[in-house]
Amino acid sequence: MSRSRRRARRLAPLVAPSRTLTLRLRLRRGTGTLARALARISREGAAVGAMDLVEGGADYNVRDLTVSVDGDEGGGRLVAALEKIPGVEVVNVSDQVFLLHLGGKLSVVPKSPVRTRAELSMAYTPGVARVCEAIARDPRKAWNLTIKRNTVAIVSDGTAVLGLGDIGPEAAMPVMEGKAMLFKEFGGVDAFPLCLATKDVDEIVSVVKAVAPGFGGVNLEDISAPRCFEIEARLRRELDIPVFHDDQHGTAIVALAGLLNALKLVKKDIRKIRVALAGVGAAGVAVTKILLRAGVRDVVGFDRTGAVYAGRREGMNPAKEEYARLTNPRGFKGSLRDALRGADVFIGLSGPGLVSGRDLGRMAKDAIVFAMANPEPEVPYEEAVRYARVVATGRSDCPNQVNNALAFPGLFRGVLDARAREITEEMKLAAARAIAAAVPADKLRDEYIIPSIFDPSVAPAVAAAVRAAAR
Amino acid sequence: MSRSRRRARRLAPLVAPSRTLTLRLRLRRGTGTLARALARISREGAAVGAMDLVEGGADYNVRDLTVSVDGDEGGGRLVAALEKIPGVEVVNVSDQVFLLHLGGKLSVVPKSPVRTRAELSMAYTPGVARVCEAIARDPRKAWNLTIKRNTVAIVSDGTAVLGLGDIGPEAAMPVMEGKAMLFKEFGGVDAFPLCLATKDVDEIVSVVKAVAPGFGGVNLEDISAPRCFEIEARLRRELDIPVFHDDQHGTAIVALAGLLNALKLVKKDIRKIRVALAGVGAAGVAVTKILLRAGVRDVVGFDRTGAVYAGRREGMNPAKEEYARLTNPRGFKGSLRDALRGADVFIGLSGPGLVSGRDLGRMAKDAIVFAMANPEPEVPYEEAVRYARVVATGRSDCPNQVNNALAFPGLFRGVLDARAREITEEMKLAAARAIAAAVPADKLRDEYIIPSIFDPSVAPAVAAAVRAAAR
Repeated sequence: MSRSRRRARRLAPLVAPSRTLTLRLRLRRGTGTLARALARISREGAAVGAMDLVEGGADYNVRDLTVSVDGDEGGGRLVAALEKIPGVEVVNVSDQVFLLHLGGKLSVVPKSPVRTRAELSMAYTPGVARVCEAIARDPRKAWNLTIKRNTVAIVSDGTAVLGLGDIGPEAAMPVMEGKAMLFKEFGGVDAFPLCLATKDVDEIVSVVKAVAPGFGGVNLEDISAPRCFEIEARLRRELDIPVFHDDQHGTAIVALAGLLNALKLVKKDIRKIRVALAGVGAAGVAVTKILLRAGVRDVVGFDRTGAVYAGRREGMNPAKEEYARLTNPRGFKGSLRDALRGADVFIGLSGPGLVSGRDLGRMAKDAIVFAMANPEPEVPYEEAVRYARVVATGRSDCPNQVNNALAFPGLFRGVLDARAREITEEMKLAAARAIAAAVPADKLRDEYIIPSIFDPSVAPAVAAAVRAAAR
Repeated sequence: MSRSRRRARRLAPLVAPSRTLTLRLRLRRGTGTLARALARISREGAAVGAMDLVEGGADYNVRDLTVSVDGDEGGGRLVAALEKIPGVEVVNVSDQVFLLHLGGKLSVVPKSPVRTRAELSMAYTPGVARVCEAIARDPRKAWNLTIKRNTVAIVSDGTAVLGLGDIGPEAAMPVMEGKAMLFKEFGGVDAFPLCLATKDVDEIVSVVKAVAPGFGGVNLEDISAPRCFEIEARLRRELDIPVFHDDQHGTAIVALAGLLNALKLVKKDIRKIRVALAGVGAAGVAVTKILLRAGVRDVVGFDRTGAVYAGRREGMNPAKEEYARLTNPRGFKGSLRDALRGADVFIGLSGPGLVSGRDLGRMAKDAIVFAMANPEPEVPYEEAVRYARVVATGRSDCPNQVNNALAFPGLFRGVLDARAREITEEMKLAAARAIAAAVPADKLRDEYIIPSIFDPSVAPAVAAAVRAAAR
């Protein structure tokens, strides 16, 4: 058994099956072929879920087996192994993930039926005309009488999708549809994806402003830096509905929530900790800003050039200049490795392999490590936990996942309920504190500083905190 | 009883309640107050629907009565009359139409649940990444793996909404939401309203092009002429998904369907009829074009200036020049009244009071009148039927309603199924013929040339005809 296989086994209760396949097998009858196939599947490290008999014949049975395999190659290996068993034929392999995506993942449905003349005349002409007239007289009534009240646009240009980069608007749709599912499932928010066939900042701003009348909020998503900064800033200025770039602020809110809980465990004062942060992109800047707002005083940011400090010449731009002004009070100019020496917190929003466990070993006692690069963290979880006390990542298969889905559904639920015109710093802090508080003090542990995204108490608590902050 | 009341009574089985109210009444017990209230409601010409007991007390009962009243003032009159009855107090009046619109009429829902880690990892990260990659390699896969396959954008700028005119994007939303309901209910199409905060042709074109990646089609709606022509023409040229201005082509399809059936009744050859058409706006031009395509040879159009003919100087523009070239083969230059003399068909897409019954009386034998101005036809239905044999209007409370809802759900169902890149003239003709054929030959009557929009056979028949035409 390989090292990675062993790791997968150890983390089994936490592992999300990364790939679920449905295998259609034609099995010769009465010769133990099914048992041999199942044994083989087990030996390959795959797990069998549902098993259906599709067709029973005199000589053969056709069965559908749903199996979870390890990684991308697991399926191919398994099929090859099964085909070698006498009496077993793999008729078809369906990928459950692709099956789930067939036809898309969202549906737009009427809230009331239109099956009779009376229903039609209320929901559509002629009755609807009076509602239109009421809104024409007072456009604010759109908040009560149209879907605006509960609807958020998820806007992306497909330039920074997951770890995949600039894959285009069509390819970004599955992520935005998935996001809309979470909006509804966790926040009761109707969200609709708009993936734009333009990367031009001015045009993106124009498009979002043009479609805004029907929406109560805008969630920007997976737009590459530095364009995302300008787009968000301009839309916030020019629109009267909340605009939120989730990659920045969602990550920042959940990271702060985790950090607040981690500091409780290690009993350190947020105003006295030293933080080294790698990756001064969209998320890194937002995390830094929320940390400063929450009381952190000593953050040093690192980009590809090295430490960001006031007066640095190489690789600077207006955003970096501002970053330098806000951070690095000691004027630190060394390497990330040097900065980690004695640091209390390492926050990674960069890429895999940036630091080693040994680097983390030089940090202060009770070190806190948030290695959030996706899908591979800056340092593997297993390595980090050997050197740091509290470790969080972006991965669903490790403890303490920093998952934006803890923030955005409740946050937008709150701002829509409050009819807030913008999402303020206070609301973001309130959301972070509400997420942190969802882990009860007596349950707090090094491996449990962030609540599960399936904890049904989180979104309502975030929404309530945001509503209170909006007042 | 007033004339209009008598008319309402006569048409009672066809009348859609134009206003449904819920009255909350506090009624003194044991003194016959409920009976008196009901008698009063009946005398006022209102009809009682549901009746609920909300609260029963020692001295009083509180009841909710749902009543349908006549027109906008009926409710006020009824409430005043009820308040005069001793022992009756009107506690509250709720307008059912407004209640139905509270919070909007659409919901965006996940097609599959995301309640477990396994479900989440398939619909969202990390599983979704493989789907994104597949689409990035081949963007055509978006048709299979995203909502594009079944989703239509309903785009309006709110400049020509119903008969209300330029009421703005917020006020247009209830109509577009209602339209989306019909798309789903009749065509199984997911439609989403985008009401735009711009009237600029270039910007509308840019916005629609930008959002197009996530949609399989575009339904333009309630955009004023002549901007609607250019917007549709440019989008059709520049997009690879079907673009359809329903106010033009939806009306044209259904009007042609009705005309085809009316001609069967009067046994006239479409190539030999004389048509006078009033209102050379968006719908008028589209109706004219589909008539010509269906075989009509002699159409004369009229605008505010009079007959449109080649060489006319006053009130011309490029659209009118083209219209003059296509129509009026006899070079008719007189008035609409003169044109109606001996005409076989009058088509009105203008405004109320344009022609009188006596004008229609001078038409050829078995005259066909489509008086489609909304909400008041060019000539009242009751007057028109005294002079013409077949009369159709846009009203739901008269026979033969020319209702676009007969066309667009099935039409888009068909083009989405066929993955058509555009809606061709052939498809529109096929749709019209399918709608006409939904009235069986043995059921065809002067008052039944157009099927009911609640006839469940229409949309599938239209879709099938469009799919066939797409091949």
